[in-house]
Amino acid sequence: MDLLLVGSIALDTIETPHKKKENLLGGSATYFGWAASLFTKVHLVGVVGKDFPQKSIKQFQQRNINLEGLTIHPTAKTFRWWGKYAEDMNHRETISVELNALQDFSPTLPPKYRTIPYVFLANASPTLQANILDQMESSPHFVAADTMDLWIRTQHKELEKLLPRIHCLILNDQEAYLLTEEYNLLKAAKKILSLGPKAVVIKKGEHGSMLLCNDGIALLPAFPLEHFEDPTGAGDSFAGGFMGYLAQNANTNFPALKQALLQGTILASFTVEQFGISKLNQIQLQDVQQRLDTFLQMLCWETQTYVQ
Amino acid sequence: MDLLLVGSIALDTIETPHKKKENLLGGSATYFGWAASLFTKVHLVGVVGKDFPQKSIKQFQQRNINLEGLTIHPTAKTFRWWGKYAEDMNHRETISVELNALQDFSPTLPPKYRTIPYVFLANASPTLQANILDQMESSPHFVAADTMDLWIRTQHKELEKLLPRIHCLILNDQEAYLLTEEYNLLKAAKKILSLGPKAVVIKKGEHGSMLLCNDGIALLPAFPLEHFEDPTGAGDSFAGGFMGYLAQNANTNFPALKQALLQGTILASFTVEQFGISKLNQIQLQDVQQRLDTFLQMLCWETQTYVQ
Repeated sequence: MDLLLVGSIALDTIETPHKKKENLLGGSATYFGWAASLFTKVHLVGVVGKDFPQKSIKQFQQRNINLEGLTIHPTAKTFRWWGKYAEDMNHRETISVELNALQDFSPTLPPKYRTIPYVFLANASPTLQANILDQMESSPHFVAADTMDLWIRTQHKELEKLLPRIHCLILNDQEAYLLTEEYNLLKAAKKILSLGPKAVVIKKGEHGSMLLCNDGIALLPAFPLEHFEDPTGAGDSFAGGFMGYLAQNANTNFPALKQALLQGTILASFTVEQFGISKLNQIQLQDVQQRLDTFLQMLCWETQTYVQ
Repeated sequence: MDLLLVGSIALDTIETPHKKKENLLGGSATYFGWAASLFTKVHLVGVVGKDFPQKSIKQFQQRNINLEGLTIHPTAKTFRWWGKYAEDMNHRETISVELNALQDFSPTLPPKYRTIPYVFLANASPTLQANILDQMESSPHFVAADTMDLWIRTQHKELEKLLPRIHCLILNDQEAYLLTEEYNLLKAAKKILSLGPKAVVIKKGEHGSMLLCNDGIALLPAFPLEHFEDPTGAGDSFAGGFMGYLAQNANTNFPALKQALLQGTILASFTVEQFGISKLNQIQLQDVQQRLDTFLQMLCWETQTYVQ
């Protein structure tokens, strides 16, 4: 099934302890789109500036991502983000953010987008996220959303109003703690469910992820890598693998959500191996399958009864 | 099969943000012994002072732990440790350590102990650990050892000499990084294998554990708990569940090591639910099995081929 994606498109400067790269194609919609488009047809809503390179537009087209919902701002520049990772690669500092075209972005959905059954609202203000849902003609089958500390702090009420309108919240552990004021992962996840969504996915970076819904809990470590270059986009490509898989299979029950969690984990593991979307550009579904097979070997647990 | 355990017995003072308890029975051998004795016969080597309570001796006997190798020091007091946990319960500060009877402890193994096939050397100086192995008459079937930052820093050579003599090193992620000077978990684990042991288990606290041996890798999250009181002894009871299970089943191939990792994880999860050994005192093998069944539900991943 088709997948609607609303998110940011950016030109990133990324510094790690080993390298610095400028003007990389980035943003939540890019990473998500690159991952999800391996599985299903993605329809993008986003905005770029007049400075946005034509070759990057072509890259989206080559991924078969529908750009009918892409606005090219007539005067503003493209959103820019400059991040610098600490020695441990787990912490990062934002050196600068220029919202540019993203400032006051208030998209109007193309008519064809309004009946798409699977929807992902990447990190954006809950007001903007709700505005997208308001424009949907038929109630989408499955809506997932991401958020961040800024919105939890500044638009808490708007976020709490959004939560009953979505089916799945995807966020990281620190955001979950902040949102719920519970510093225990399981308690935080349960509290999020009580706020409305049917499922919550908590991402823990190199420590894996947890899925909680009424039908059960699933715990998943991260795929272990010996070499990685750049953590940027790991969370967004995780969400892209997750949602892309669900849309492809047109199923959102607990077993499907668990399988989707595996796909998200594998996609994120590819993303961080190289800067920006370089690695995602190189892989195909066969590569995902191959790594998934390796991963499942590491996760294979046998039941055994030893109480005689 | 029988299991030889060499470790510390302590009287602990434990402070968490919520509670403080004094004179708790603790030490690596206590936590390990309480966990392992659920599975198999444990033979203890350790030392306590003349102040050690008779009722604690009785507790060991009630666990059916053989105390033939327990020395009661004629003049010194029992080893004491006082630890204080930070608000997040992940970091702790040692307020005081009194080695007392543990200072210069150099055990002589009772003759019956010298042919025991399964051996666990809890955290102690590599010199003392090697001295135990020197006293074994027949080469044990499976020896596992723990260590800590102090020995990695001060007895690095002795530790490197010990590693080819053991089959499995069990340590936490920070210790693995320090030992190998590799700040990537998988690289660190591989480097440890290259130093001699056939298997390495890296504990990551609330983030689970990893097992690496030549036959494969296994990744395991921690059992998620909504309430826990005291992290003390989690690592030692993890090792106790791990080794106890291996000894019980008299098997140390990769599938057995994986099953043992599950048992260790479950035992550690019980330990942290209450202060000291309180919770371990209450559980039986049926409780372990029940929690394991719940846990396996959270870890159940299906293979699925989606490349057509």
